[in-house]
Amino acid sequence: MPFVGMAFRGLATHPEPDEEARVTDHPAQERAMRRALALAVRARGETSPNPVVGCVVLDAAGEVAGEGYHAYAGGPHAEVVALREAAGRARGGTLVVTLEPCDHQGRTGPCTLAVIDAGVARVVYAVADPDPVAGGGARRLAEAGIEVEGGLLAAEAELANAEWLTRTRLNRPHVTWKFAATLDGRSAAADGTSRWITGPEARHDVHELRARCDAIVVGAGTVLADDPRLTVRGVQRHDHLLTSRRPLRVVVDGRARTPLTSRILDDEAPTLIAVGEDADTTALETRTAVVRLPRGDGGLDLAALLAELRDRQIVSVLLEGGPTLAGGFLAAGLVDRVVAYLAPTLLGAGPAALGPAGVGTLAEARHLRIEDITRIGPDLRVTAVPQAAETPTRPVAARREN
Amino acid sequence: MPFVGMAFRGLATHPEPDEEARVTDHPAQERAMRRALALAVRARGETSPNPVVGCVVLDAAGEVAGEGYHAYAGGPHAEVVALREAAGRARGGTLVVTLEPCDHQGRTGPCTLAVIDAGVARVVYAVADPDPVAGGGARRLAEAGIEVEGGLLAAEAELANAEWLTRTRLNRPHVTWKFAATLDGRSAAADGTSRWITGPEARHDVHELRARCDAIVVGAGTVLADDPRLTVRGVQRHDHLLTSRRPLRVVVDGRARTPLTSRILDDEAPTLIAVGEDADTTALETRTAVVRLPRGDGGLDLAALLAELRDRQIVSVLLEGGPTLAGGFLAAGLVDRVVAYLAPTLLGAGPAALGPAGVGTLAEARHLRIEDITRIGPDLRVTAVPQAAETPTRPVAARREN
Ligand SMILES: NC(=O)c1ccc[n+]([C@@H]2O[C@H](COP(=O)([O-])OP(=O)(O)OC[C@H]3O[C@@H](n4cnc5c(N)ncnc54)[C@H](OP(=O)(O)O)[C@@H]3O)[C@@H](O)[C@H]2O)c1
Ligand SMILES: NC(=O)c1ccc[n+]([C@@H]2O[C@H](COP(=O)([O-])OP(=O)(O)OC[C@H]3O[C@@H](n4cnc5c(N)ncnc54)[C@H](OP(=O)(O)O)[C@@H]3O)[C@@H](O)[C@H]2O)c1
Repeated sequence: MPFVGMAFRGLATHPEPDEEARVTDHPAQERAMRRALALAVRARGETSPNPVVGCVVLDAAGEVAGEGYHAYAGGPHAEVVALREAAGRARGGTLVVTLEPCDHQGRTGPCTLAVIDAGVARVVYAVADPDPVAGGGARRLAEAGIEVEGGLLAAEAELANAEWLTRTRLNRPHVTWKFAATLDGRSAAADGTSRWITGPEARHDVHELRARCDAIVVGAGTVLADDPRLTVRGVQRHDHLLTSRRPLRVVVDGRARTPLTSRILDDEAPTLIAVGEDADTTALETRTAVVRLPRGDGGLDLAALLAELRDRQIVSVLLEGGPTLAGGFLAAGLVDRVVAYLAPTLLGAGPAALGPAGVGTLAEARHLRIEDITRIGPDLRVTAVPQAAETPTRPVAARREN
Repeated sequence: MPFVGMAFRGLATHPEPDEEARVTDHPAQERAMRRALALAVRARGETSPNPVVGCVVLDAAGEVAGEGYHAYAGGPHAEVVALREAAGRARGGTLVVTLEPCDHQGRTGPCTLAVIDAGVARVVYAVADPDPVAGGGARRLAEAGIEVEGGLLAAEAELANAEWLTRTRLNRPHVTWKFAATLDGRSAAADGTSRWITGPEARHDVHELRARCDAIVVGAGTVLADDPRLTVRGVQRHDHLLTSRRPLRVVVDGRARTPLTSRILDDEAPTLIAVGEDADTTALETRTAVVRLPRGDGGLDLAALLAELRDRQIVSVLLEGGPTLAGGFLAAGLVDRVVAYLAPTLLGAGPAALGPAGVGTLAEARHLRIEDITRIGPDLRVTAVPQAAETPTRPVAARREN
């Protein structure tokens, strides 16, 4: 039984369980983990600032006895839901969960306690909890005599929780840069016309991205040029009764140029304007929230911006451009995912989709790994992540600690 | 039997058979056509200036009696090969062929004669032969009392013969524009470095494209900047014994700036330099073939260039850039297919993959339809064709008729 052989049980010399995904010889557990993942992602974008978590409890005979997922922040944890459904059948069984059970008294009790009380014999989880406060659950369970195993379908589980894991590991929000461009990389024609480069299906897809993020960020140039609303429109959630989310709208606007007549200042969603320390915001502050940031290379300090957003419980940011601000984020190494909507169109002139990103020569190019390619109507959606070597692994220095 | 009901038999009022692809109720014929298409494309790029053609002969009982394809220009036609294999079993049977049988005495006899002689009862073809000389085979066969049907799997057959059909219908070579770019549409970094944007797999794939074309065209800018060889390298053909092809290398070089030391002037393949009527080519002409072209908008008249190439038996052109020349071809409506190799890389600065293409505003953008998306190593290959509305349907005026 190689799977059990690699179990995490009082390994004083290996306090961190092995997170490599590996093939288990226990198909029932792998099936259960796939199911748990499917349950977890149902609530994607709705659990913030918590992770998504799914859980399946198998009884001693290996049959499914209970299922659950974490549906919203403040709601019961996945383990608790699944154990409740399993009731007495959990005793001697296996709890399969996408994230290491928490060991921390938050709005709900620690899951470790619920698991120990239920008398399960084994816990299998996918990804370790990197949170210094809530982590350590595996050790607590092992100390209670439960057989604990981490790493099953870890890669899939990482993907499902990418935003939350980035926030927790790097101590800053996860940033997805979204752009729309022609096949030759233009985001507008020579005369500036840009509505619409992509088709209605791709535009709808952007609203799906918005609906799952906590904040939408644009530069002052985009507000001045396009006067966007940056609200979530036309997205329906059939599987949830939660009211639709209203991501925070953020303008990176060093000189406080956002016009008071901007649609972004309407009541449809909250708005935050990030300005330089010296900007005159007398008028703006009568209308919306303003935050002052120090200046960094080529504009406001974007790491400081992310620290601000983190302090406001923002886990996931959708960066919607424009090219100048996107270049700034890339140059600072602050992009975690790129979603490119490419229209099968050629322009041959007009502004480029991406502005200066600190790359002078080909050897300095930002390399990505393509994660997904999907046809969206007539267009193409390419999802890619920066290559591991380029992802900053140090947490961003906090500007203010509350 | 709706399939027979739509047959082409002495229809004086409908001299052109219906070319719409439709679902046949005769699975054996559709199977045979799929097989014939698979045979046809085996020789893709090796039959020029002829089309690729595949043929399957079914006996009277519907069993496969013979197969064949056209392997090289001057070699036997597909129908002849298949009928030879079928021998007496062709009598009363069905001949299934990807292109309307020719009715023209070329290097080999007309296929219509061979078909009539073999005594087949029915002929099913995919695409009508648009050639004014070789066409009309269906009518000839129908007049001989054979049941004739066109249009079975026509869309697939169009694709297989795209180059030849374009040459025949528009009286000019088919042009595939290939480019390599980053996800943000750059074909080089800010300092001009561009080797290599894409990985070795994509670069190898370009050699596969080269191996199947008759001519490779670049602008003078590319020769001056990159000094490319433009030869086919590293491509193996396991299924054929033909010696490797050597596509004509063509430089569009209005002012005859191609240096005498250019690699493109080596002996690896023939080379043609297209210059303006006033260019001084005294030195160049000692080294290679030169053709003089009139000037059009923004450079040499590219339609005249294609007419020249057509007169040299060129059916398919691979346009390898750079951005300026590609813009010229697009502006002139002379691109039939776009093959984009997109690297999952971001630069944010550097030359764009496509230069001015006569598009001033978004409404004038060149729309394409994506035909294929394939991952090639770490990169993405997107194959697209101009939307029907934009394909010129008039033949290009010939500059010289031989
Ligand atoms: N295709 C797409 O997906 C897409 C998406 C969005 C926008 N767009 C287009 O993009 C155009 C606007 O783009 P843009 O490049 O002019 O403006 P932008 O990127 O939206 O905003 C740039 C501005 O942000 C401010 N900024 C503050 N800190 C910065 C930092 N660290 N790095 C970079 N910028 C910082 C600067 O203004 P201050 O100096 O005043 O602070 C800068 O000028 C519009 O035409 C819009 O249509 C396209
Ligand atoms: N990424 C890729 O796939 C790729 C492929 C090839 C090249 N490149 C890069 O592209 C760069 C060179 O590109 P480029 O744009 O400078 O040069 P180019 O497109 O190769 O050549 C342009 C030249 O072609 C001549 N020309 C003649 N008739 C023309 C017409 N009707 N329309 C357009 N041009 C015509 C003009 O020179 P005359 O006025 O002298 O006739 C013009 O300056 C190099 O850096 C190379 O590395 C990239």
